[in-house]
Amino acid sequence: ALNWSDLDRKAVDTVRVLAMDAVEKAGNGHPGTAMSLAPAAYLLFNKVMRHDPTDPNWVGRDRFVLSCGHSSLTLYIQLYLAGYGLSLDDLAALRQWDSLTPGHPEYGHTPGVEVTTGPLGQGIGNAVGMAMAARRERGLFDPAAEPGASPFDHHVYAFCSDGDIEEGVSHEASALASVQKLGNLTLIYDDNEISIEDDTRIAKNEDAGARYAAYGWHVQTVDWRTGDPAKGDYHEDVEALHQAIMEAQSVTDRPSFIVLRTIIGWPAPNKQNTGKAHGSALGADEVAATKTILGFDPNETFAVDAEVIEHARQVSARGAQAHAEWQKSYDAWAGANPDAKKLHDRMATRTLPDGWAAALPEFPADAKGIASRAASAKVLEALAPVLPELWGGSADLAESNNTTMKGEPSFIPSEYATKSFPGNEYGRTLHFGIREHGMGAILNGIALHGGTRPYGGTFLVFSDYMRPAVRLAALMKLPVTYVWTHDSIGLGEDGPTHQPIETLSALRAIVGLDVVRPADANETAWAWRGALEHTDRPTALALSRQGLPTIDRSTYASAEGVLRGGYILSEASSGTPEVILIGTGSEVQHCLTAQERLEAQGTPTRVVSMPCQEWFFEQDTAYQQRVLPRGVKARVSVEAGIRMSWDRLLGEAGEAVSIEHYGASAPAKTLFEQFGFTADNVVAKANAAL
Amino acid sequence: ALNWSDLDRKAVDTVRVLAMDAVEKAGNGHPGTAMSLAPAAYLLFNKVMRHDPTDPNWVGRDRFVLSCGHSSLTLYIQLYLAGYGLSLDDLAALRQWDSLTPGHPEYGHTPGVEVTTGPLGQGIGNAVGMAMAARRERGLFDPAAEPGASPFDHHVYAFCSDGDIEEGVSHEASALASVQKLGNLTLIYDDNEISIEDDTRIAKNEDAGARYAAYGWHVQTVDWRTGDPAKGDYHEDVEALHQAIMEAQSVTDRPSFIVLRTIIGWPAPNKQNTGKAHGSALGADEVAATKTILGFDPNETFAVDAEVIEHARQVSARGAQAHAEWQKSYDAWAGANPDAKKLHDRMATRTLPDGWAAALPEFPADAKGIASRAASAKVLEALAPVLPELWGGSADLAESNNTTMKGEPSFIPSEYATKSFPGNEYGRTLHFGIREHGMGAILNGIALHGGTRPYGGTFLVFSDYMRPAVRLAALMKLPVTYVWTHDSIGLGEDGPTHQPIETLSALRAIVGLDVVRPADANETAWAWRGALEHTDRPTALALSRQGLPTIDRSTYASAEGVLRGGYILSEASSGTPEVILIGTGSEVQHCLTAQERLEAQGTPTRVVSMPCQEWFFEQDTAYQQRVLPRGVKARVSVEAGIRMSWDRLLGEAGEAVSIEHYGASAPAKTLFEQFGFTADNVVAKANAAL
Repeated sequence: ALNWSDLDRKAVDTVRVLAMDAVEKAGNGHPGTAMSLAPAAYLLFNKVMRHDPTDPNWVGRDRFVLSCGHSSLTLYIQLYLAGYGLSLDDLAALRQWDSLTPGHPEYGHTPGVEVTTGPLGQGIGNAVGMAMAARRERGLFDPAAEPGASPFDHHVYAFCSDGDIEEGVSHEASALASVQKLGNLTLIYDDNEISIEDDTRIAKNEDAGARYAAYGWHVQTVDWRTGDPAKGDYHEDVEALHQAIMEAQSVTDRPSFIVLRTIIGWPAPNKQNTGKAHGSALGADEVAATKTILGFDPNETFAVDAEVIEHARQVSARGAQAHAEWQKSYDAWAGANPDAKKLHDRMATRTLPDGWAAALPEFPADAKGIASRAASAKVLEALAPVLPELWGGSADLAESNNTTMKGEPSFIPSEYATKSFPGNEYGRTLHFGIREHGMGAILNGIALHGGTRPYGGTFLVFSDYMRPAVRLAALMKLPVTYVWTHDSIGLGEDGPTHQPIETLSALRAIVGLDVVRPADANETAWAWRGALEHTDRPTALALSRQGLPTIDRSTYASAEGVLRGGYILSEASSGTPEVILIGTGSEVQHCLTAQERLEAQGTPTRVVSMPCQEWFFEQDTAYQQRVLPRGVKARVSVEAGIRMSWDRLLGEAGEAVSIEHYGASAPAKTLFEQFGFTADNVVAKANAAL
Repeated sequence: ALNWSDLDRKAVDTVRVLAMDAVEKAGNGHPGTAMSLAPAAYLLFNKVMRHDPTDPNWVGRDRFVLSCGHSSLTLYIQLYLAGYGLSLDDLAALRQWDSLTPGHPEYGHTPGVEVTTGPLGQGIGNAVGMAMAARRERGLFDPAAEPGASPFDHHVYAFCSDGDIEEGVSHEASALASVQKLGNLTLIYDDNEISIEDDTRIAKNEDAGARYAAYGWHVQTVDWRTGDPAKGDYHEDVEALHQAIMEAQSVTDRPSFIVLRTIIGWPAPNKQNTGKAHGSALGADEVAATKTILGFDPNETFAVDAEVIEHARQVSARGAQAHAEWQKSYDAWAGANPDAKKLHDRMATRTLPDGWAAALPEFPADAKGIASRAASAKVLEALAPVLPELWGGSADLAESNNTTMKGEPSFIPSEYATKSFPGNEYGRTLHFGIREHGMGAILNGIALHGGTRPYGGTFLVFSDYMRPAVRLAALMKLPVTYVWTHDSIGLGEDGPTHQPIETLSALRAIVGLDVVRPADANETAWAWRGALEHTDRPTALALSRQGLPTIDRSTYASAEGVLRGGYILSEASSGTPEVILIGTGSEVQHCLTAQERLEAQGTPTRVVSMPCQEWFFEQDTAYQQRVLPRGVKARVSVEAGIRMSWDRLLGEAGEAVSIEHYGASAPAKTLFEQFGFTADNVVAKANAAL
């Protein structure tokens, strides 16, 4: 049973007071949910979760995701109370320049924050990803342990709000969590019926509990709104919530959903249960009145009773003790499993094993060649035994994206394995369903959880469906790899809805995302190498549906140049080019043919392959100048997409072989010809630029 | 009861045969669903829907949305059978260059196609939007009519697949459809348990019917998988489906969801019920075997029995008759409601009323000024009585986006109206909930339905959440207006998750979308004018959270220049600038201050306000040259975003005042200063460019 003392109750009320004070000091922010979720958050951090405030990165810790990131105080105040290093001064600096308490929790910025949240719905997907990663890691390190007996067993808790529940990504991630039978996941839904537009009934009447039951989750309701909210009937039954959480823990074959019915901003006498309490300071009078109701001095701010903080901080000692006990179990495991221990150490720092790159395939020159998506499959197959940390899959396009490592089992409860995809709970191939956004958020959760390296595929054009999650991967600097195939009008018959045009430029716009579009099979291998060697950012691979000639590297430069983003693939005969053709992906072949023709007409022509602008711009100026000398103004970019991201390199004299309109439904060959992606057109543009 | 003859049965089998033939001829495509949905599609087009193949744009028609657009043959073959003008030759040209039968249905390309579909889930949102629009239009034109008695009453039918159901946007749109009590909407879910990765259980175990019941929909199941599919037990009980559709029609207070359990590719002997039948040609042998099973000559292709086509085409005569009867009712309405008739005529062509623009507010010069989002609110308020076709709302950010027309009722069933938002079923203000993607798809559906002009708001950064729908709006050339506020780091304390950096460039990348970022209140009014005057494209308004000085137009040029995209706001003292400062939105004020300082230092400086690049590039070269003379190489772009979309105008000598990293959580003023959005920095960059 729950041990819940008067000091616990007072600590919870202190949370409410601090939340009001912090928002009041900042002049803006979100007090309401921090007030009403105070008991739930304190319960988790003080009584339920296994965590050690002195070591926020403890591998054995339970994870906490605040999907409703706007209620960052819900987390910050617990981090302060538990002793993660946040001070009252930090709370008082809420939402200020350079503070540890930004408006939304930021991963890598504040100790104890597991994930950057704020864009709604994402946290649910992140939590699902963490829960999946926990199982995958257990499978890698300690598969034979009894349930609950492994140092790699732990739980993932998440809070979410009405906004999270309304977002589509919640649907995608939650539906998949059920298939994955994530018994280590508990999602607590703060059902307060208030959002920014006040009463949610204006836009929401779903029965969220029934919806989660329809997914197959274990669903419970804890109703604190015991009576008429207008009359202030409210009973914060912490014991009932605790029981529900314990029940959720005991259900190990399904994720758990707890509908917690609260009154936002409770017990603020005038603003509780209103949209006003959601996203604005309550105002001095309301804060004072609320403090009085709670038995606090209305004239004091950021006042914390010494007894309260001392009591709350005991969680730190308990955490250290749990950590020490866990350490014994971890050490025992390490002693018995030296190889697994070595792997775990390596993965914990995302260090690649010595000599791993030797496994990368080399592709012989071949005029017919293969699609870069097929080359990517060969790379994955080759890396499978060398990099156990690498795993991933597709949003229902496995055969199209070529994302399945040959022979590897699927990551799927055995009962859901199929003839096409045999697998088990510790498998490797991921099946996201037709849920790109969920996939993006789940990949982030996996990367956040530990040292594995997840990848996920769909058609390049559908990167739009997962863009909010990709942006967050870049913002959080997560090493996720996107395998986005069918990267141009070369997709062919499926037509303009499926043909990316603007997509490459739009992805290059995302700060912190590397976009790599290899020209042939060997560039694809080097692209994967570059992606995996970067551990501080996501990488997008843009791969062709159609076959691409495998360039003869005995004639042309080594594909190793990929790592520098752009490189001289073929020098001008004179060694001093008059025109430079800059191509990516499937268009590089046309640059090489055009070079021959231009040289034949007497124009010294250089071909630069530039699979990754971001990597190129990271090179020193001397290298950039060597590849693209300032003096050579005649430049032609050749890419089956809009020119926007090439303007920087083209200057005023430059010309682009690009497509500035939507594609069409027809065979790829027809489209490339109709839309001018031919050597002839490259020659024409080169002559125009000269 | 349903009249279902042998000829109907044979027509359905003919559909299957044509679907196989068309894909076989193309060499690729999606035969399976076209085969298994053949009875359902034929039932709708031949027995259920009110439509007139001789007039695909008949206002009184029922609407059909094929959300599973990959199964385009499901629609094309019905259009052929019903007599919309598609021929067997067109079917034989499936997925070929310049054909009427592209891989996915394309709006505006093939008569009878109501909407471009293919990106999964969108069609559900489009159908919801159409159903909402139908009610809004009824409210505008004929609110007093009894239910079902108005010429504006009709039904919306949609087919969707597993992929649609898995996508998050299905959740968002469907949850809202329930709140809106869309009794005029029937969604038929083709539950065949097969997707590209074969058996869907690898990634899907939700009970979709229960999920829709949790939303509050009316849910029925029609199970044609009567026994063991392995044994070929299958019973296409068309009568049962018809009854379910009739039942759905009779339930007028809720949208209806019909789970139709089918076997994909039935009755192909070897490939039915497999992923192979989904997205590939069946192969000659399998096609021949299937034809034999169906009693067709395996040696014939595209063979249609004269009796069958004659029978099917009778729908055309019935449609013409229904149209004629409807016309009587319409004419009676028109006679009794001449003003409404005039409005309807005007809206049908999206013609703006004479003199409408006189209603647009003019804002006096004001150093303090107002936020452009607040100016937008004034514009909406002023337009409300003048443009009844204009309606819209926000994804739960009404007060932040300022999207509510003052005093206008919400579009909401009365029982869900709230104190904050009174309204009724014919109201005007839309409440999308925290569902940006659903909003985007619904706005498209509204625009597709008829002449109203919908708008929808959220924070600019969250345009990412709805980007797939925005792309489709651009592809379909739909006049939707996006009100995206909080358009930069000027959003302030909410921090980097909420601050757009790359967003403006990434939106400019979308072909066919106009992005307008006005500099002050008057530019905002002209921006709305430009948006509304374009009826062939979507427009994005990027509006500030923070106050912007209202520029003194007696000193500076008229804001009318907005319509030309970019204009000389302030000429150099000499009339011949040495440097040009090009600003947008909140940064234009710094250009004007910088101009004063540069002029003081003796540098003739021009300030160009460029709220919309797309409109600027539509101007003739002479105008573009007048504003940005080729000879003036010293140019500085000033925009609180990345520079990518400015490179084109900057040339090699140009400089950008931009931000190439994520923002931070702090007051806006601090951020602008820390990140260099100051007149001082503009001066410094100008000197660097000179």
